[in-house]
Amino acid sequence: MLTIGVDIGGTKIAAGVVDEEGRVLAADRFPTDPTDPTAIENAVVAAVAQLRQGRDVGGVGVAAAGYISPRRDGVVFAPNIAWRDYPLRDRLARGVDLPIVIENDANAAGWAEFRFGSGRAVENMVMLTVGTGLGGAIIADGHLLRGAFGAAGEIGHMEMVPHGHYCGCGHEGCWEMYASGRALARAARNAAVAYPDRAGALVAAAGGPGQKIKGTHVTEAAAAGDELSVELLANLGEWLGAGIADLAAIVDPELAVVGGGVVAAGDLLLEPARESFRRNLTARGFRGELRIEAATLGNEAGMIGAADLARY
Amino acid sequence: MLTIGVDIGGTKIAAGVVDEEGRVLAADRFPTDPTDPTAIENAVVAAVAQLRQGRDVGGVGVAAAGYISPRRDGVVFAPNIAWRDYPLRDRLARGVDLPIVIENDANAAGWAEFRFGSGRAVENMVMLTVGTGLGGAIIADGHLLRGAFGAAGEIGHMEMVPHGHYCGCGHEGCWEMYASGRALARAARNAAVAYPDRAGALVAAAGGPGQKIKGTHVTEAAAAGDELSVELLANLGEWLGAGIADLAAIVDPELAVVGGGVVAAGDLLLEPARESFRRNLTARGFRGELRIEAATLGNEAGMIGAADLARY
Amino acid sequence: MLTIGVDIGGTKIAAGVVDEEGRVLAADRFPTDPTDPTAIENAVVAAVAQLRQGRDVGGVGVAAAGYISPRRDGVVFAPNIAWRDYPLRDRLARGVDLPIVIENDANAAGWAEFRFGSGRAVENMVMLTVGTGLGGAIIADGHLLRGAFGAAGEIGHMEMVPHGHYCGCGHEGCWEMYASGRALARAARNAAVAYPDRAGALVAAAGGPGQKIKGTHVTEAAAAGDELSVELLANLGEWLGAGIADLAAIVDPELAVVGGGVVAAGDLLLEPARESFRRNLTARGFRGELRIEAATLGNEAGMIGAADLARY
Amino acid sequence: MLTIGVDIGGTKIAAGVVDEEGRVLAADRFPTDPTDPTAIENAVVAAVAQLRQGRDVGGVGVAAAGYISPRRDGVVFAPNIAWRDYPLRDRLARGVDLPIVIENDANAAGWAEFRFGSGRAVENMVMLTVGTGLGGAIIADGHLLRGAFGAAGEIGHMEMVPHGHYCGCGHEGCWEMYASGRALARAARNAAVAYPDRAGALVAAAGGPGQKIKGTHVTEAAAAGDELSVELLANLGEWLGAGIADLAAIVDPELAVVGGGVVAAGDLLLEPARESFRRNLTARGFRGELRIEAATLGNEAGMIGAADLARY
Repeated sequence: MLTIGVDIGGTKIAAGVVDEEGRVLAADRFPTDPTDPTAIENAVVAAVAQLRQGRDVGGVGVAAAGYISPRRDGVVFAPNIAWRDYPLRDRLARGVDLPIVIENDANAAGWAEFRFGSGRAVENMVMLTVGTGLGGAIIADGHLLRGAFGAAGEIGHMEMVPHGHYCGCGHEGCWEMYASGRALARAARNAAVAYPDRAGALVAAAGGPGQKIKGTHVTEAAAAGDELSVELLANLGEWLGAGIADLAAIVDPELAVVGGGVVAAGDLLLEPARESFRRNLTARGFRGELRIEAATLGNEAGMIGAADLARY
Repeated sequence: MLTIGVDIGGTKIAAGVVDEEGRVLAADRFPTDPTDPTAIENAVVAAVAQLRQGRDVGGVGVAAAGYISPRRDGVVFAPNIAWRDYPLRDRLARGVDLPIVIENDANAAGWAEFRFGSGRAVENMVMLTVGTGLGGAIIADGHLLRGAFGAAGEIGHMEMVPHGHYCGCGHEGCWEMYASGRALARAARNAAVAYPDRAGALVAAAGGPGQKIKGTHVTEAAAAGDELSVELLANLGEWLGAGIADLAAIVDPELAVVGGGVVAAGDLLLEPARESFRRNLTARGFRGELRIEAATLGNEAGMIGAADLARY
Repeated sequence: MLTIGVDIGGTKIAAGVVDEEGRVLAADRFPTDPTDPTAIENAVVAAVAQLRQGRDVGGVGVAAAGYISPRRDGVVFAPNIAWRDYPLRDRLARGVDLPIVIENDANAAGWAEFRFGSGRAVENMVMLTVGTGLGGAIIADGHLLRGAFGAAGEIGHMEMVPHGHYCGCGHEGCWEMYASGRALARAARNAAVAYPDRAGALVAAAGGPGQKIKGTHVTEAAAAGDELSVELLANLGEWLGAGIADLAAIVDPELAVVGGGVVAAGDLLLEPARESFRRNLTARGFRGELRIEAATLGNEAGMIGAADLARY
Repeated sequence: MLTIGVDIGGTKIAAGVVDEEGRVLAADRFPTDPTDPTAIENAVVAAVAQLRQGRDVGGVGVAAAGYISPRRDGVVFAPNIAWRDYPLRDRLARGVDLPIVIENDANAAGWAEFRFGSGRAVENMVMLTVGTGLGGAIIADGHLLRGAFGAAGEIGHMEMVPHGHYCGCGHEGCWEMYASGRALARAARNAAVAYPDRAGALVAAAGGPGQKIKGTHVTEAAAAGDELSVELLANLGEWLGAGIADLAAIVDPELAVVGGGVVAAGDLLLEPARESFRRNLTARGFRGELRIEAATLGNEAGMIGAADLARY
């Protein structure tokens, strides 16, 4: 059976037809306006209509950032789109006569990696999406862990540092504030103030004062050998590994898949994460030990996972 | 079907016959020596033989502290007993001709609460056993989460404080070092040094210098109204609640059941835990919210849970 | 002997004639442009000329934010004005034929409190200026502690929290990020996100969304009884007291004077600071204990102190 | 003028005749019993009598661990000897007809380094005595900073980590718990549990299980190239440097002198301390920067400093 996956982002939606092996048979992108729920719905309806033409499609999975209702029919709260307790499935059903499920985007991406990507050989894994923020998904015994209220896997808000960096959620010390693209940019900007003598390459990459440094500048400068940038990525990796050790204590996966834009840094990120994980894992040597690997499906993971979850 | 549950502790084993409703039809306790694995096995064999007399027993569940193999047939590592990669099931099978499963003791206790205790109405819960240490169990969608290596639910070793208190595991800042009976005693002893003017009741309860204070002295003094003891319990409760907020972000249960000896403090512990949980929960008001409740099965939880898990 | 004190702020300078008892005989304010060093100098020269008319003035003390040279003749680095290794004394001497000394503004304010304000009866004190940032001054055995490089008393950049809040200085966890007007505003804005149900009064005081909350809104709402605001001030006070306990361990003053705009909160700030100090002081009961008191000279402290330091 | 310096330790006293250049003309050691104040006094009296024979001695300085009265005539509180509000000067005066002053031992050692050792060319320095604990002394503008209550320089109890390691003082996170011989031993023992595969050399050096590791084992193993030991010393050095950066913010010395037993590790300790200091110093590049150097007077520093302080 073919299904359609739709990944609703802040400024665009990505939609594609996916087969049972996770292959994307056709896909397209559509711009949207996050402040206009109706426009988003119309775009989804149009995308589905376009993609199912000439194909036998059995269902639609829609991925979005936010808290999804446990029954997978609505969005409880979305950080970037004007949805609050929003019955997205019913709204879409007015223009789509197929079964529809709503999923959290990080969960969808994790599911895709579990089914078709880096995690296809394991039954227990976590996925960490290190993008602007830090999203997560937990697969336990082959099942996606959604939680009692649809909020499982919101690992970015595990507190890592008492009285630590303020998070957009209003709390202090969230993991996301130490292990995300936003954290990387923030750390780089502060390093440019604290260590101006070491930040030359970064400031040059940003084409201006330190406050213009973005996470991608760090990744690029690190790839070119800039010492401070390598250090900043290593530091992010260390926080990543420390938190993965916590997840190992709690849900004990066999594999941690790291995706999102920052994973472009490759082993400059992953080796420090592995090393930090090993240092932080309790009872190391007396227990099995997870692997930390890069994701393989890239930006399409959310779309593919949403499509596949429409089958379950 | 009746099954027998055996809970192997450091100095004794508790064994009982349990029915499908979690009722204990008969039970007994047997002293053991933690340094002598053979003696422990003989005691288990004898206990099973005694308890099954005149009853139709279909299986045996054995709970022990430590890392249990994912296939539930052995002990990978036990903190208190001389077991390392130990084939406990095969060893016991030489004297017991019934199906046997080995389970982690905190998992067994959590399962008992889920099936027959405070959690019997929910599908997603965590159990926190606040005894000498801090043990945990996670039930997700009605299944006990064991993890890829049998180590899930070792929540006591989630790091709460970078560079924090040293833990017996060799790491710093483990949750157990802030939310356990050992942590309570340690905090009380240090408070007796830092605040001698406030520690009179505690020192009196311990019947000697501050270094003799135990967790039970704090609980008793708090029940009698001692201000410092009430504060120490509240502080423990706050760390408990903070960690539960982390668990909510990760596995999102509907209920957190608090058991173990320290829960005798009742609302002196649980109210601060609830308050701290609410303060630490990200997106409160935009998502469902778990309840924190005391366990109801007491010391028998491990035995009952082990017996019931023998059915699965 | 009369002297003139000049306090150079970001947008204005305050200047006054001060007698040996710390009385201000005449004073005035003059607007300035922080980006134009020459304009600032001209304003200082004009102010001095105006104030000394008809009076016998023996010297000029100039206070400014930043690192002052140990010889009190220049500004090494100023955070708010375009001065780097700037020979301010020589520049001013071109228009002022009086002895001139340059002083750090927080040091000047602390000296004023020591000589004529809350600290006039003690020989060892610290002053904490809790304004937008957190400035400090240390008086030891009746002498202002300037340090080897003119940087003593920069207490706001003592690290309180490893991996804590980012500071404008590029580092993490500076005391200033927990105990200043900026910290108060930041904490309030985050509380408005984390606890929207408790932030009604604050949001109303700010006349708009939570991100518009300023420190003064918190102080006002607290004075009117708003529970969250009272709690935010208490929290600031606790950090203040904790840091004062550190200062007690290091320089052991008899008195800590708290000034700056936030001290308008009075005992809502100072009582939690005192309580926290007592809780954090090592060897309490076995050593003398400082008092924490509000400053008494208000905004004029920097001017008065600068004038008086011109005599030394 | 010659003076006698006496350094009272837990199990022995060291006494010597010192000239105005800090040279020790004669010295001896005498065993004592820390539980018997009278025996200690008798030993001091006998030592002074013996050393002044045939010499023109003008005064006696006595150094001891603990809080010393501001008037330098008694011990307010001693951690290791049974003294509480003890009039040590008057007691000694019954057997010594010379002027006597009592000083804190870390202050005395710091003063010796300032006058005759690593600090003889500066006017502003701090001394850190990294022995079993972490002691300190502050010299500001050529004066020993004693504080209002005789407790200045107790830098070991500055809080470095909120909720950090418990200290013997009853508080959490004291600097001493991260930068002292005790901290080194503690960290090594825990590393032996957390990283058994890396701790072979250390366990061998201790000649037994990990719990027997002492600080000297780490120093020795590090000198022999053991990777974990080098890392443990570097970690201690990092905490040292971080705290020195705090002292730079507060008292702004030109020099930090590191003494005590752990300084035997040399640059294995000091280089990481310097590097960490540079990373932690606010406004680096915009302000003068202290040097970190090893002490040069060794074990005799307390005796020499006490003798010299008898002249002031």
